[in-house]
Amino acid sequence: MKNISEASILRNGKSLILAYDHGTEHGPVDFEPLPESANPEHVFRVGRHDAVTAIALQKGNAEYYREWEEDKGISNGAPLLVKINGNSALAKREDYYSPKQCSVQYAVEELGAEAVGYTIYAGSIHEDKMWEDFRQVQEEARKYGVPVVMWSYPRGKGIEENSDYSGQKDPEVVAYGARLGLELGADMVKCKYTGRQEDWKYLESQVGDLKTVISGGSKRSDKEFLQDVKDTIEVGGNGLAVGRNIFQREEPEKLLDKLEEVVFKDEDSGEFVQNG
Amino acid sequence: MKNISEASILRNGKSLILAYDHGTEHGPVDFEPLPESANPEHVFRVGRHDAVTAIALQKGNAEYYREWEEDKGISNGAPLLVKINGNSALAKREDYYSPKQCSVQYAVEELGAEAVGYTIYAGSIHEDKMWEDFRQVQEEARKYGVPVVMWSYPRGKGIEENSDYSGQKDPEVVAYGARLGLELGADMVKCKYTGRQEDWKYLESQVGDLKTVISGGSKRSDKEFLQDVKDTIEVGGNGLAVGRNIFQREEPEKLLDKLEEVVFKDEDSGEFVQNG
Amino acid sequence: MKNISEASILRNGKSLILAYDHGTEHGPVDFEPLPESANPEHVFRVGRHDAVTAIALQKGNAEYYREWEEDKGISNGAPLLVKINGNSALAKREDYYSPKQCSVQYAVEELGAEAVGYTIYAGSIHEDKMWEDFRQVQEEARKYGVPVVMWSYPRGKGIEENSDYSGQKDPEVVAYGARLGLELGADMVKCKYTGRQEDWKYLESQVGDLKTVISGGSKRSDKEFLQDVKDTIEVGGNGLAVGRNIFQREEPEKLLDKLEEVVFKDEDSGEFVQNG
Amino acid sequence: MKNISEASILRNGKSLILAYDHGTEHGPVDFEPLPESANPEHVFRVGRHDAVTAIALQKGNAEYYREWEEDKGISNGAPLLVKINGNSALAKREDYYSPKQCSVQYAVEELGAEAVGYTIYAGSIHEDKMWEDFRQVQEEARKYGVPVVMWSYPRGKGIEENSDYSGQKDPEVVAYGARLGLELGADMVKCKYTGRQEDWKYLESQVGDLKTVISGGSKRSDKEFLQDVKDTIEVGGNGLAVGRNIFQREEPEKLLDKLEEVVFKDEDSGEFVQNG
Amino acid sequence: MKNISEASILRNGKSLILAYDHGTEHGPVDFEPLPESANPEHVFRVGRHDAVTAIALQKGNAEYYREWEEDKGISNGAPLLVKINGNSALAKREDYYSPKQCSVQYAVEELGAEAVGYTIYAGSIHEDKMWEDFRQVQEEARKYGVPVVMWSYPRGKGIEENSDYSGQKDPEVVAYGARLGLELGADMVKCKYTGRQEDWKYLESQVGDLKTVISGGSKRSDKEFLQDVKDTIEVGGNGLAVGRNIFQREEPEKLLDKLEEVVFKDEDSGEFVQNG
Repeated sequence: MKNISEASILRNGKSLILAYDHGTEHGPVDFEPLPESANPEHVFRVGRHDAVTAIALQKGNAEYYREWEEDKGISNGAPLLVKINGNSALAKREDYYSPKQCSVQYAVEELGAEAVGYTIYAGSIHEDKMWEDFRQVQEEARKYGVPVVMWSYPRGKGIEENSDYSGQKDPEVVAYGARLGLELGADMVKCKYTGRQEDWKYLESQVGDLKTVISGGSKRSDKEFLQDVKDTIEVGGNGLAVGRNIFQREEPEKLLDKLEEVVFKDEDSGEFVQNG
Repeated sequence: MKNISEASILRNGKSLILAYDHGTEHGPVDFEPLPESANPEHVFRVGRHDAVTAIALQKGNAEYYREWEEDKGISNGAPLLVKINGNSALAKREDYYSPKQCSVQYAVEELGAEAVGYTIYAGSIHEDKMWEDFRQVQEEARKYGVPVVMWSYPRGKGIEENSDYSGQKDPEVVAYGARLGLELGADMVKCKYTGRQEDWKYLESQVGDLKTVISGGSKRSDKEFLQDVKDTIEVGGNGLAVGRNIFQREEPEKLLDKLEEVVFKDEDSGEFVQNG
Repeated sequence: MKNISEASILRNGKSLILAYDHGTEHGPVDFEPLPESANPEHVFRVGRHDAVTAIALQKGNAEYYREWEEDKGISNGAPLLVKINGNSALAKREDYYSPKQCSVQYAVEELGAEAVGYTIYAGSIHEDKMWEDFRQVQEEARKYGVPVVMWSYPRGKGIEENSDYSGQKDPEVVAYGARLGLELGADMVKCKYTGRQEDWKYLESQVGDLKTVISGGSKRSDKEFLQDVKDTIEVGGNGLAVGRNIFQREEPEKLLDKLEEVVFKDEDSGEFVQNG
Repeated sequence: MKNISEASILRNGKSLILAYDHGTEHGPVDFEPLPESANPEHVFRVGRHDAVTAIALQKGNAEYYREWEEDKGISNGAPLLVKINGNSALAKREDYYSPKQCSVQYAVEELGAEAVGYTIYAGSIHEDKMWEDFRQVQEEARKYGVPVVMWSYPRGKGIEENSDYSGQKDPEVVAYGARLGLELGADMVKCKYTGRQEDWKYLESQVGDLKTVISGGSKRSDKEFLQDVKDTIEVGGNGLAVGRNIFQREEPEKLLDKLEEVVFKDEDSGEFVQNG
Repeated sequence: MKNISEASILRNGKSLILAYDHGTEHGPVDFEPLPESANPEHVFRVGRHDAVTAIALQKGNAEYYREWEEDKGISNGAPLLVKINGNSALAKREDYYSPKQCSVQYAVEELGAEAVGYTIYAGSIHEDKMWEDFRQVQEEARKYGVPVVMWSYPRGKGIEENSDYSGQKDPEVVAYGARLGLELGADMVKCKYTGRQEDWKYLESQVGDLKTVISGGSKRSDKEFLQDVKDTIEVGGNGLAVGRNIFQREEPEKLLDKLEEVVFKDEDSGEFVQNG
């Protein structure tokens, strides 16, 4: 059964996931705008902000995070979400694929993960293989009682070569990807935001009780970024997963303060709901 | 041994399976004629009708269904049939294939499935792989004592490139697909109806004691649809699996009332046989 | 070690295997000459003849056979030989392959198989994969103490594209296929008969103590068929596996009577040796 | 750790392996020069000669061998070396490969193998897969304490298409193949002999403490054959694995007598060292 | 969690790994400059030098090493690092791949490995498969508490066909490869040195607390080689893995003496720190 209702990665039913898998997915080039962001400890420190309800890391940095917490004597850090698969930008592939680099067992038993993440590229010629990988991940996560966040990014030849679709941000494509999160048994789905609120509203109509977050995407202005978050939450969204838009900023705390207000402030009372 | 004779998904030896895997197989586009059909709870409610002997769902909606039942305090809902495999229309594939997205163990032990379903595309270049997947599914289902329904849809290059066949609805092709249900150890087979009663009669001559249901197919008029069901039952068919022809209707209950009469009314007594 | 000497599928060291896997391998078309042969119960009844030392079925019909025996109260029916692999004629394949559709464990433990069968297409580009499948089947059968019959049918690109061979009935090819039965650890091998006694004699010189049976092949006259059986037994053959030549006849019992005489009558005493 | 020092397949640190896998590898054609050699019992009898320190068989003939020994009441026959993989000449392959046809467990536990053999075709596009197969075989053999003989035959596209190499008998290629025996953990390696003693000397310089034997190859005169064996032993070789050069001779015992002298006679004492 | 801080393969936080996998990776040709280097015992003896903190061997030589130690009564030899994968230069491959030739279990339990090594070729079309292999290796090593050294060598079509990169020594490529060591959970990463100190400094900025060593590469002058080691250590490097630059020298001890000074001498005290 779903594991999300009481999950530690939610606060008032919403999430702000600080994602730091860029060293895997894009390599050192992603850290160039702010070189200290290459240092995982820099990002671990940013993750201390109250607005962060989960920090998403690949296996190696998850190990590092736990050691860093121990070194610093931190016991109330952001819950750890371990990404179970990932890929590098170096490989040549016939089409998109993301191999497993961590088992759910290792993530939960050894790293103390409170959630796991998995990327599916529907539309790829390797989609079917990723379904079978996801099946195992999902069922093992159910066994451990940790929620599963699906990074649902339809892309690849099935999208590119289909003239019905305008590309990865086609609202039909994004909504279909979100629906797969529901159908395959994810607890939360992370999708690209097309930039139009009506598209997210449509997406929300397709996913039943599934939690949804937007992916932060490439760096843009505070104002634009906050507006996107606000727009999606207004129509049912549950927050965001954000990386570069936070850790590439000189003063990430400022934006996190604003995000906390947008994401977690109770509309009625105008007050923050506490964690837990 | 076969698990069908006492199965909860039968009523008087017949079945009406409400199938709701369209979000997986076709995506949001299938819900457009009736937007509320995108909401699984809409379909769960439709499934409360007495005529429904099973509701067929993919893993994620099966989890949702159980939660919904619990929320509503429902204990006598339609038996759950979990589809073990499925695929999206987004992927590009060399030929038809349907990956596993749920294990039989998870379906039965965690979701309380009372039957499982599996799609085989005989004729595809991936047919042999699906046989091996099916073998495991069938044997595991036997272990749990739950019946196996085979969605038997011959298609793909072996059919398209064979000049002996006119296509997926060639009666020889449909009957061969049904026969494979018998040979591979299914308890019930779901096949396309060619529209000609004599073809279904021929099919029935090929399947021994196997239960057969027609697939509902795309939406058509009540009259045409009921006639198809009636025609196949007359020559030995055991009912239908239906999706869009029910959940895309404004008043699905009306058609379900009529179907109940066609499928379950005892010919001799003119009375309904009760469930169980 | 070999499991054949005391095997129930032998009578006086010979076998007559009634094979009924045509619904899998060829589909409904094979039953057209005698439509009732599409009904497994028809063939089960034919298998009641004393001459039949084994009935060879795919998993689904094996399940059916056991139910039919139970329904009829039959306890002394022909021993069941479960075919472990098989394929349909619908699929498009790069070259011949036959996937597993039943495990040895299920065949023996659940279906009470007294022998198992496995098809190898040496010469196919998939030959090596079938070797590895066969290895597992053979070793598991040894564990259960049931004999393994290899359907050894060399075919595919390695034969077709090799100018040294005239085709599947080239005596060198047939004999090599039989030899593989010995080398890979089968207890009995089923081979095509070229129609020339000298070829079978050559084959017998290649197989050590392995049991051999000819495959019945397509339907022909009683006289021709009996002569083939007689000719191969004369030079060391151990009988036949027969399907269409029996179940497509109006009066299969008549031919079975004659076959019983040819296959099982003791040359010296002129009397039948009893089963067991 | 290595299992060779006390191995039963050695006599005075040397080996004469009687190999009889030709029915698998080449088929009946290999037995034509001496038709009775097609009969495994003929070869089993030849293996009774004192000079034979191991008889190498595929699974099926290994089963036969054990039955034959039991029938004849033989308890001191040549130790059995079971070939774990093999292939037929019938298949069409993109490049050389040799599938497993016996598990180490079955070979040791059921057949009483005192050594196992495995063929690697370095240079093939399937080389990497064979490494992984070999890894499992070697580690399982270590568990049982039986030595592993590697048939190391570099061949395939990596050799043919590399202009640095003159072919399978290029001394660099043969020596590299032998070295892989050392690196991958074999106890003994079987290599082709180029016909030049200096090449074998070079090979010996590459293999540390690994035992080496030459493969017998196609049939040639007694004199040439004995000279090859003598030449390789002189520079560190440990004997030979021989098939056709023995079992295709009318009087194999005569050549075995001579081989015994060349391989096992102690240089200093001029006497034979006993087995064990 | 990471296993490196107390690892026996470190001395004062630095490592000098004597690598001897050339017989696998390149074959006999690598030993030609100094023929005795083909003899593993020659290299085992070199490994007795105090400067060596680990000796890296493939499975077969690791077995040999343990026997040699036992023969010689050596109990304080250099810790053994077993390479878990490797490949030969003979095979033809579509792109770079390195198959497993030893299990972690065998390396640790049977060979007493105190560390394991694994090669990843990011950039290859087989990169994803190597990630999954590495995942298992890393998690099994964690279970045993032995550190994992990643040979991180980006190469293959993804590098060659990407015009952004100048090749395997492009500093972005090398740094990305090192970063993958961190992300995937290695304890130490072995990278190519571009020859420019600034590039190694950049690399160090990308790897958090991961240990780094340069690969020795092809043979060059003592002076150049020592300078490379010094330059990388100056900016955070942790030493080197060296093969040909040591074992192809007439007097390897001399260079090892100098390396010991460069790698292990404490900068402040000017004294050597002891092992442990």
